[in-house]
Amino acid sequence: MPARITRTPDRGQIRLRLDVAYDGTDFHGWACQPGLRTVQGELTEALRIALRLAQPPELTVAGRTDAGVHARGQVAHLDVPADAWNLGNIARPVAGATRPVGAAIAGRLARLLPSDVRLHAIGIAPEGFDARFSALWRRYSYRVCDAASAADPLRRRDTLWYRRTLDAGSMNEAAARCLGEHDFAAFCRRRPGASTVRELLGFDWHRPEPGLVVATVAADAFCHNMVRALAGACLAVGDGRRQPRWIAELLAAGIRNPAVTVAPPHPLCLEQVGYPADDQLAARAASTRRVRGCPAVRDS
Amino acid sequence: MPARITRTPDRGQIRLRLDVAYDGTDFHGWACQPGLRTVQGELTEALRIALRLAQPPELTVAGRTDAGVHARGQVAHLDVPADAWNLGNIARPVAGATRPVGAAIAGRLARLLPSDVRLHAIGIAPEGFDARFSALWRRYSYRVCDAASAADPLRRRDTLWYRRTLDAGSMNEAAARCLGEHDFAAFCRRRPGASTVRELLGFDWHRPEPGLVVATVAADAFCHNMVRALAGACLAVGDGRRQPRWIAELLAAGIRNPAVTVAPPHPLCLEQVGYPADDQLAARAASTRRVRGCPAVRDS
Repeated sequence: MPARITRTPDRGQIRLRLDVAYDGTDFHGWACQPGLRTVQGELTEALRIALRLAQPPELTVAGRTDAGVHARGQVAHLDVPADAWNLGNIARPVAGATRPVGAAIAGRLARLLPSDVRLHAIGIAPEGFDARFSALWRRYSYRVCDAASAADPLRRRDTLWYRRTLDAGSMNEAAARCLGEHDFAAFCRRRPGASTVRELLGFDWHRPEPGLVVATVAADAFCHNMVRALAGACLAVGDGRRQPRWIAELLAAGIRNPAVTVAPPHPLCLEQVGYPADDQLAARAASTRRVRGCPAVRDS
Repeated sequence: MPARITRTPDRGQIRLRLDVAYDGTDFHGWACQPGLRTVQGELTEALRIALRLAQPPELTVAGRTDAGVHARGQVAHLDVPADAWNLGNIARPVAGATRPVGAAIAGRLARLLPSDVRLHAIGIAPEGFDARFSALWRRYSYRVCDAASAADPLRRRDTLWYRRTLDAGSMNEAAARCLGEHDFAAFCRRRPGASTVRELLGFDWHRPEPGLVVATVAADAFCHNMVRALAGACLAVGDGRRQPRWIAELLAAGIRNPAVTVAPPHPLCLEQVGYPADDQLAARAASTRRVRGCPAVRDS
């Protein structure tokens, strides 16, 4: 079901911004699917109850994560009747305490949500805000453990256990060749009528501790499977099966190459979404719609 | 069942040192219990198969963690027939590769163990090594999130979500009052005939990132529940219910005080066990046995 694009809230409605984090392990991804447990499904049901709405609200999200992908910095918006927000925030006064606006609803949501979804913030969005189209960039991390002696079972849900030792230097050399604006068709699942041109703003691998290699990847937006395909190509470089220049050759060829393995989803996490200053939100949303012109931008 | 204390391996046997990590969430603690899933149970069964032993081997461990407690740096030893180790390490030669001793058995164990237990290393222990009695110190961490806006669902299995904001400064003031050798009876479950005198070598709380407070606690050894009782007392100080000097008063009173809440087990992780230089291992084991004289030192 394609999402209805709501540019501005209807009369009598207000737009709310949600900041959420989730462990994607036990979800069939972000987007609602009948009969399956999804992050959107859990959130809309909790919001319906907390805001006493007749229907589950429609959520627009910055990054539609796939099954198994996590988020620490996901952003979404929804439009609700102003009354639902105002009445929802009337709570029993706490002696001597000034509670921030939204605290009553945030507390109610925290209790309604399962422990694998946490609400970081909820509040009235600034004028012109659109969680998806106002975003300037999305930043993901990809976490790989390449030494059995460093495997941390507590992080197995968000870490790839890789059997070969990786050379972060050559992975960085490969990653650097992808920076800038390119047609990323080699690393995307193509969708009819959708552009695969994206601007990669940052892509590097670092070793925060021995046995661990973590990628940080940022772009204006990502095509479907793009981060995981880029990670898969870098892993082939890091373990010595390919040379760093191979990535540049793939990129230049501009077609999906079966030699690129899409790396598993569970080490991938949406860390942060960047937005412009409040007075630029509406202009950014308008220009993103014009430039990208693809009805189903997916992130992950 | 009290463990048989094996001071040195029998003739024809060798002592192996194991370094392991585990996610304690789905275990009923370290120690074998009939019909329950325990870390020791999983390890001894995997070792029996990997080393082709007739019986599951007896394991002696540095820190007998309770149900729900994790480890990133647990150490254990076991005595096995020298033949089992030598034959187990005969593996198909890998072209051009020199595999370290123990690699064949380590690989077999990695495949036999469930994903919530990881083997970091296995090898012949130095002369005089005893995982429990040669240890100089144990270091634990205790992880608390005190801001809903920073709750990370990916870390919910090893983090306490605390509803009040904590003052790490006053927690450190309280923690510092516990340093040194004391009778920790106020923070222990007493066992008949066992000493509750321990030397606290380090105890501090730090904020590695906003919304997160982590304790590092090190001692020669810990009595049962001691870290969790110390953490519980510090939380009462950190949220303002108690003054830092309260901890010194508890310690001086020297009896278990019901006002001290034993904090939950899941934020606790055994990070590291310290041993002396190889030529001091046997002397340390002998002196620990003499001084502590308690048949069932438990850690956690």
